Amino acid sequence: MRDPRYDILFEPVAIGPVTARNRFYQVPHCAGMGYRYPSSNAALRGMKAEGGWAVVCTEEAEIHPSAEISPYVENRIWDAQDLPHLTALTEAVHAQGGLAGIELVHNGLHSPNHYSREVPMGPSHRAVDSGDPLQARAMDKADIANLRRWHRNAALRAREAGFDIVYVYAGHDMSLLQHFLSRRHNDRTDEYGGSLENRVRLIREVLIDTKEAVGDRCGVAFRFAVDELLGADGITAGGEGHDAVAMLAELPDLWDVNVSGWDNDSQTARFAEEGYQETYTRFVKSLTTKPVVGVGRYTSPDAMVRVVKQGIMDMLGAARPSIADPFLPKKIETGRIDDIRECIGCNICVTGDNFAAPIRCTQNPTMGEEWRRGWHPEVIPEIKQRERVLIVGGGPAGLEAARACGQRGLEVVLAEAGEVWGGRVARECKLPGLASWGRVRDWRLGQLHKLANVEMYLASDLTADDILSYGIAHVALATGAVWRRDGIGRTRHSEIPGLDRGPLLTPDDVMAEGFDDQALPDGPVVVYDDEGYVMGGLMAEVLARAGRAVTLVTPAPLVSAWTQHALDQPRIHRRLVESGVSIRLNAVMTARGADSVDLACSYTGAPDRLACVLLVAVTSRLPNEKLYLDLKARESDGTDIGIETLGSIGDGRAPGTIAAAVFAGHRYARDFGEVIDPDVTPFRREAIEVLGN
Amino acid sequence: MRDPRYDILFEPVAIGPVTARNRFYQVPHCAGMGYRYPSSNAALRGMKAEGGWAVVCTEEAEIHPSAEISPYVENRIWDAQDLPHLTALTEAVHAQGGLAGIELVHNGLHSPNHYSREVPMGPSHRAVDSGDPLQARAMDKADIANLRRWHRNAALRAREAGFDIVYVYAGHDMSLLQHFLSRRHNDRTDEYGGSLENRVRLIREVLIDTKEAVGDRCGVAFRFAVDELLGADGITAGGEGHDAVAMLAELPDLWDVNVSGWDNDSQTARFAEEGYQETYTRFVKSLTTKPVVGVGRYTSPDAMVRVVKQGIMDMLGAARPSIADPFLPKKIETGRIDDIRECIGCNICVTGDNFAAPIRCTQNPTMGEEWRRGWHPEVIPEIKQRERVLIVGGGPAGLEAARACGQRGLEVVLAEAGEVWGGRVARECKLPGLASWGRVRDWRLGQLHKLANVEMYLASDLTADDILSYGIAHVALATGAVWRRDGIGRTRHSEIPGLDRGPLLTPDDVMAEGFDDQALPDGPVVVYDDEGYVMGGLMAEVLARAGRAVTLVTPAPLVSAWTQHALDQPRIHRRLVESGVSIRLNAVMTARGADSVDLACSYTGAPDRLACVLLVAVTSRLPNEKLYLDLKARESDGTDIGIETLGSIGDGRAPGTIAAAVFAGHRYARDFGEVIDPDVTPFRREAIEVLGN
Repeated sequence: MRDPRYDILFEPVAIGPVTARNRFYQVPHCAGMGYRYPSSNAALRGMKAEGGWAVVCTEEAEIHPSAEISPYVENRIWDAQDLPHLTALTEAVHAQGGLAGIELVHNGLHSPNHYSREVPMGPSHRAVDSGDPLQARAMDKADIANLRRWHRNAALRAREAGFDIVYVYAGHDMSLLQHFLSRRHNDRTDEYGGSLENRVRLIREVLIDTKEAVGDRCGVAFRFAVDELLGADGITAGGEGHDAVAMLAELPDLWDVNVSGWDNDSQTARFAEEGYQETYTRFVKSLTTKPVVGVGRYTSPDAMVRVVKQGIMDMLGAARPSIADPFLPKKIETGRIDDIRECIGCNICVTGDNFAAPIRCTQNPTMGEEWRRGWHPEVIPEIKQRERVLIVGGGPAGLEAARACGQRGLEVVLAEAGEVWGGRVARECKLPGLASWGRVRDWRLGQLHKLANVEMYLASDLTADDILSYGIAHVALATGAVWRRDGIGRTRHSEIPGLDRGPLLTPDDVMAEGFDDQALPDGPVVVYDDEGYVMGGLMAEVLARAGRAVTLVTPAPLVSAWTQHALDQPRIHRRLVESGVSIRLNAVMTARGADSVDLACSYTGAPDRLACVLLVAVTSRLPNEKLYLDLKARESDGTDIGIETLGSIGDGRAPGTIAAAVFAGHRYARDFGEVIDPDVTPFRREAIEVLGN
Repeated sequence: MRDPRYDILFEPVAIGPVTARNRFYQVPHCAGMGYRYPSSNAALRGMKAEGGWAVVCTEEAEIHPSAEISPYVENRIWDAQDLPHLTALTEAVHAQGGLAGIELVHNGLHSPNHYSREVPMGPSHRAVDSGDPLQARAMDKADIANLRRWHRNAALRAREAGFDIVYVYAGHDMSLLQHFLSRRHNDRTDEYGGSLENRVRLIREVLIDTKEAVGDRCGVAFRFAVDELLGADGITAGGEGHDAVAMLAELPDLWDVNVSGWDNDSQTARFAEEGYQETYTRFVKSLTTKPVVGVGRYTSPDAMVRVVKQGIMDMLGAARPSIADPFLPKKIETGRIDDIRECIGCNICVTGDNFAAPIRCTQNPTMGEEWRRGWHPEVIPEIKQRERVLIVGGGPAGLEAARACGQRGLEVVLAEAGEVWGGRVARECKLPGLASWGRVRDWRLGQLHKLANVEMYLASDLTADDILSYGIAHVALATGAVWRRDGIGRTRHSEIPGLDRGPLLTPDDVMAEGFDDQALPDGPVVVYDDEGYVMGGLMAEVLARAGRAVTLVTPAPLVSAWTQHALDQPRIHRRLVESGVSIRLNAVMTARGADSVDLACSYTGAPDRLACVLLVAVTSRLPNEKLYLDLKARESDGTDIGIETLGSIGDGRAPGTIAAAVFAGHRYARDFGEVIDPDVTPFRREAIEVLGN
């Protein structure tokens, strides 16, 4: 079944004393679960192993109370209390034939220690990097001895918990070992500072310690950021990054290499293509005989074969692609390339972790739901009775609902009012940098076309009467949303006066087929972003690229503020400036005049006026709920209108992220045929014991 | 023992079917514990009851999965799984003779539901208020019926868990009920929208539901924000706030009134004096016969008597004063007024909650440590052997270490190099708005003066030789820190070139006795804040008040960015603007010229130059560690220098918050005489079970 071209991906790889069954390697990644959701985390990691990943790693595991980064939820391996959590995880991975890896970490000056209240530590006196008014203290020799012992003991505990691969970690500017390596964090004058050899010393010692402690049974991996993308201010692949690899070349059993910080390592698709790290990491294999794993958001098996054959890496590292499709290896192995659910590079997964909430994924609605809802990414219970369901709307919610209902064996009719599938996804994926978002549509269409039990109709703008005329007992409305034209947004919950005093566009207008900016009056454009995710910035970018003089105005202190949780906010700001967009932060729009908008400082209310001929309002959205309300009204007097269940899902229910829409569509299908009691918590929760005094 | 003037504070108050033993009422407040730290929370709340609070309430308790506000950690009362946690809490409060109250809440459009992934709900279609790209949907009649039933069921569960007081909550702009009341959130056209009567309807229904459900055994409290400090855009005490109270006057068993949002309710001392809410809340008692509780950071028993006698409130509500001193009521009751540890109004407590970490307090280092470390705010084990300890440094760490060691019965010598006690606190409390921070010093001095076993010396600038000459076996160094003069700060970890090309001040210079701004050259002042807590803004404020032309430059997108976690960031920005300070955000200083500073945009690196004759650098600090290093060096070759234990605590160890320094001092005293194993987690942790698949 497997295409022989891909055989190379399924060769085993030895990692010290253990052997990976193939080249698919889930590198350590956060999941918003860690120590707080141990059962959930075990199930998530086990699912990756079931999907064919040879190695499945944890998120960071803090080795000591002085190394913790609350409010972020990582793993902890402070003492024996943590072992049952970690053992459950390794057992889940082993049960599916995978190797389990653990990324031990002391976060150094990245540890504000909000929870433990321990004094942060680092190579030198420096502020912690979290923004807190706390500093890390320069470690003395006793501290270094402690650190080495803590790491060694954590490695021993990890082995006891059943891990096959134990990490030494110097990446993402989040690790004490990287802080020691870094000239800007390390101004020591002893044998741990100064020359590169000195700054590498602690890494070398910890690598040796770890191999001595657990190397008999565990592979010792070294995760290392070869470039910080800071030029001369940081580690570079052409400089100290290279030299450090040369110095340590044969010490670890495996090199897991990437770029630092996290925002560079996990760039969104808007700013980086598949394979974007190769430029930096490709040199590593020339310096070591040990296997090398790297990442680059690879979802194409051909690209994977290429990087192995070209000698860029031995194992295909993945975080996000394994989140979007835990079964990516199995699908390649079984010749089901078309079934791969490709990561779109939106970093919604990262936002989950940044809110200390279990991970989520735009493409994979089951991500994070493996344990608590018992959802499997590939399996969904069949419904024996071949009931019919009408799904109205072919955007992300409707497509996923239809696909998943189809998978369950229902007779599905999917009707879309427009001429194309995808709804908002079809529109948004045409915006600069968002092409990969179209994968949300593409994967679902590909799956739907394989389902004989799904009928699909475009250009079907149904009324309530039309719907009733179908005589289908189960109807789900996934009718999407429109951007508001009244100025009601995040900051301001009442209408902005005078919006109609000049041309007013919303993102719907700008994204509409045939939109012609040149047909609009000349003069300055104001994009008013009171929503705060990507759309405001994208509107400004589009219009600036079309040659308009654009000012982006937002009440927030940041451009596209929420994208800070997806890691690309600074890049968005830079791109807007490069596109010629003027940026006006901390300004609320209070009114519109004939050729201007009135602003007020978000802090002081101080008024200002800005020339504006064309206004683009990006504020909030209104669900297209007319159909739903019409149908609800018809049954409100108890009339049997022939509909047994009427659902409303996705943006048509409440505008949100694409991830939320896909989740809603999937949930609709999972819930189909079940009696849902709104008083019952719809998932299992982890259990925290009450302990005595 | 009690001063008869205060007798009135100890009169019992009936709250529906239950009776409070006195007028001290711990209103609901967050503690960063909630559902995640149930044992810790029970111990914390029990401690309040032990300290004499008649009523001790929980934080918010979310009534349903659609009402959750992760990453913030509140209580949950979704279903029976939550009851053991809550029962432990009520039992802890009851064991100390208190009444336990629970603040039931549906957070409405304040619920992004990151964890539950439920669709947010509110009166109308509006963006959630958390900044997330999610919207709340307009609730229909079925939703309203669900909400009422969820609230009623939660009330029944609360009664089952043993609560004596059950809240209906419409405050802080965080509650669905307040959202229904608000014209800006509610544009409904049915009987729940439009007139005030309609917008109050849901509150009335829920109050009636709750009384019917649990009013037999529980007092039903209504927490209500009478003013939003938004003028015509919000609820006002002179308008709808007043009228809503009039409409509902006799429905609840108790009115708990405040101002909204949280940043207005919990204003820092920098912006509000004791009793600041009276202006808004005093009308309430004129409209109801039911007891009224209000807050205003009252720490003075005379002020408390006044507000009762003046008929402003019946019960003295407190959050922060009960955190700084859980034993405030007991101390008044037993005539120990001088022993009250007064809240300084810094909102470090709030920052704990904002980082989803257990609460902490600058004044009370035991806050949040009741269960996990077994710390009691008033009791500390006596040490039988009368050992001697020398504490060097009379700032917050040294004062607290000396006080607590003294309380333990040690023979303490406290030596301070300067002419006054308090260290940084003595300096910082002279800055505008920070007078109350001096309470950190004042309370400790007051306590120390009562301890015959503590000797205190000012003007004692000790050398290592001096210290050794004392022949004291236990030495703790609490020598504080100085602001760096090299430009190394949060953003930039290397020196800024050219800092010596003109007059350079640090906060130490500006705060020094005899500092005379007029003696410095005329011309523009730049305050460069690369630290991000209060100091940069304060320096700008001081110099602007002195008549200088000041520009505050910071690499951050916010003035005094970290203060957003203490709720007063917007007020600080406004105050700086009012003081005439120019603000330059998102700018890194790259170099200093003769009459200028070179800046670079934080995002793009675009260069700029700003005129600057006088530069104030607020970047980071260096610990005064010379003494520590000297003594360490002397014993490094194994020489017995006559010191058994050498400690380094507070800013002298690692510069941080005052809260961290006080904590370090207290911990030193608690640890005294113990063998501390750095490999052992120094506190108990809550236990999360591993559950099966």
